[in-house]
Parts: sequence; structure tokens; C-alpha cells
Amino acid sequence: MELLSQDEISARLAELGGWEQQGNALHRDFEFKDFTEAFGFMAQVACISERLFHHPEWSNVWNKVSISITNHSKGGITDLDFDFAKRVNAVAGD
Amino acid sequence: MELLSQDEISARLAELGGWEQQGNALHRDFEFKDFTEAFGFMAQVACISERLFHHPEWSNVWNKVSISITNHSKGGITDLDFDFAKRVNAVAGD
Amino acid sequence: MELLSQDEISARLAELGGWEQQGNALHRDFEFKDFTEAFGFMAQVACISERLFHHPEWSNVWNKVSISITNHSKGGITDLDFDFAKRVNAVAGD
Amino acid sequence: MELLSQDEISARLAELGGWEQQGNALHRDFEFKDFTEAFGFMAQVACISERLFHHPEWSNVWNKVSISITNHSKGGITDLDFDFAKRVNAVAGD
Repeated sequence: MELLSQDEISARLAELGGWEQQGNALHRDFEFKDFTEAFGFMAQVACISERLFHHPEWSNVWNKVSISITNHSKGGITDLDFDFAKRVNAVAGD
Repeated sequence: MELLSQDEISARLAELGGWEQQGNALHRDFEFKDFTEAFGFMAQVACISERLFHHPEWSNVWNKVSISITNHSKGGITDLDFDFAKRVNAVAGD
Repeated sequence: MELLSQDEISARLAELGGWEQQGNALHRDFEFKDFTEAFGFMAQVACISERLFHHPEWSNVWNKVSISITNHSKGGITDLDFDFAKRVNAVAGD
Repeated sequence: MELLSQDEISARLAELGGWEQQGNALHRDFEFKDFTEAFGFMAQVACISERLFHHPEWSNVWNKVSISITNHSKGGITDLDFDFAKRVNAVAGD
């Protein structure tokens, strides 16, 4: 798993709806109807995290969920972060 | 919370998509894309259960979830079971 | 549900292990063995949130969970925040 | 991943607390304090299922959770089922 160059990151972000680069991480904010729907989404993100064994930094308040994902050991963004982001978009209905 | 008569149960079931009467309980089977989506649904059902403080008998295999709900202490079906079923339908996208 | 005075907050915090006051909120950081254990805790906190219908601002990274709870509509700390914190401590094994 | 012989299954079950053989599956019933604790356990089992990408047949009523695990495609019990069962025991505190 190698770090992606800034050009590769920019190219992939252009194809990936909703996410942006924040420092060394990919970031996206989600908004749902209420807490129940937000937590149902979080449960799916937990499944993705264990499936890829790649875990986000994330937070929730009521109907809002914010997710950042990076490769801590590599110190930047790799394929795995984009794989994670695509799967999260899929469960969010994007 | 009073037991509903069979006429009341039948009338409400006619308005409630997907559920059927099985003995003293309301029952519905759900099918999802995969385990992740099924578990996201289950997390929302858990929220509904704690919100109403009314808990189902339910099971899961991969992408399938089956739910039965009844009022154990009353020995039959009450308003609360229909409230539960409506909320579950809402999170399932019905 | 009335706002608690600073004296009441301090007295109750003295009895409540692990939580501290941060501005208008009660706050506690939790640490678990791994993500799985952290998410099992989060699922229980979600249940508590729906039971009390009182929801935290919270975040997770791997085995760490941070929780803040306040009464947004009142603009401060009430009985409900302490009730929430006590229940969270109970599921955390405190 | 090969099917285990009956001798192998019996030997491993002797080392694995709480589980029994039911036909082609390993089975265990769990009991918790209440629904919240049971659902926290279920969330951890969901994490294990995605980590191993091996999913149980399971059910819940209030504080009770029953789990059966088998290798459907092989038609019997393999190493993976015992790995699953050991991890489930670990999150249950056994």
C-alpha cells in the first residue's frame, strides 16, 4: 500500500462525490433525517471498517456524521482510503 | 394499552404494507443487499425498540431479517405493536 | 427540566466517576481494547440516547470514544445529562 | 478451508466453553442484563462477522441472543467456525 501523489489524489477526488482533502486525510460530512438514520449509517460504516480493517476518525451529533480517513502508519492517503470512501458513499446511497 | 380486537387488527394490517399476523404477533421478513445493509437496518430497529421501549423477537442470516412483535404482558397485539411496525417500515424505506 | 447551578453540578460530578465539566457540557473519554469493543460500547450508548431521547456529541478513533452531553435547548447542564452520564458509566462497567 | 472430522469437532468443542454442536453447526445461547447490553454484544458480533467475512444465523429477544455458525458452502463445520466462536466468546467476556 503506497502513498498516492497529490496528482493521483486530485484525480481520484474528482471522481468521488462529496469527499474533500483535509491535510493528510479524506473528509466528508453527512446529514440524515434523525439520530436513528444516522446511527444506522454508522453501523454500516463500522462493518466497512472491519471488512477493510481500516478505521476512520469520525463524530456524530444527532443527524450529522463527519468522517475522516487516512493511513496513519504511512502518514498520508493510499488506495485503501479511497476504497473506504467509495464503500461509505455506497451505503449512504450515493 | 389494550388488546386490539381481530377486526381492529385486520383493518390496521390492511393499511400497513408488508406485515402479516402470525398467531399473537405481527410479522415481517425483510431482504437487503448484503449483511452490512441488513445490520444498518438492525441498528435502526434497535433505536426504535429503545425509543418505544418495546422489543421484537428477531433474527438475521446474511441479508435477511425477520421480525415479530407482540405485547407479551398483554398476550396479544396492541397499538404499540402497530406503532413499532410503522416505524420499522419507515426506516426500511417503505 | 431546569438548568443546574454550578454548586449542584460540582456536587454531582464529585459522585460521578470519570466525567468532567467542559464549558456547558459533561465530558468523558473512554478507552477500549480495540475497535470492536469500542463499537459495542457505542451501540449501547445509542440505545441509551434513544431511551432518554437525549443525544451526545461524540467521536471515535479505533479504541477511543469521547462523549460530551449537554442540554442544547436550555443552554447548559440538567438532570438529564447526569442521568445519561450515569447510564453510560454503567454500560462501560464503572 | 476443509470440513473438520467429527473427532476434530469434538476435540475442539471440549476446549471451547459454552458452544455445542447442533447438526452441521456450532450453537450457543447468551444471556445479558437487558436489551441494551445484548445489542452491544450483537454490534461486536457484527464486527467479527465482517472481519472474518463469515456470518452467523442468529436471533435476539430482549436480553437473549442465540447464535449458530456453520460453513454453508462446505456443508459443515470448519476452522473458520471455531475462529468465529472463539472471538464471540472473547467479546462475551469468556
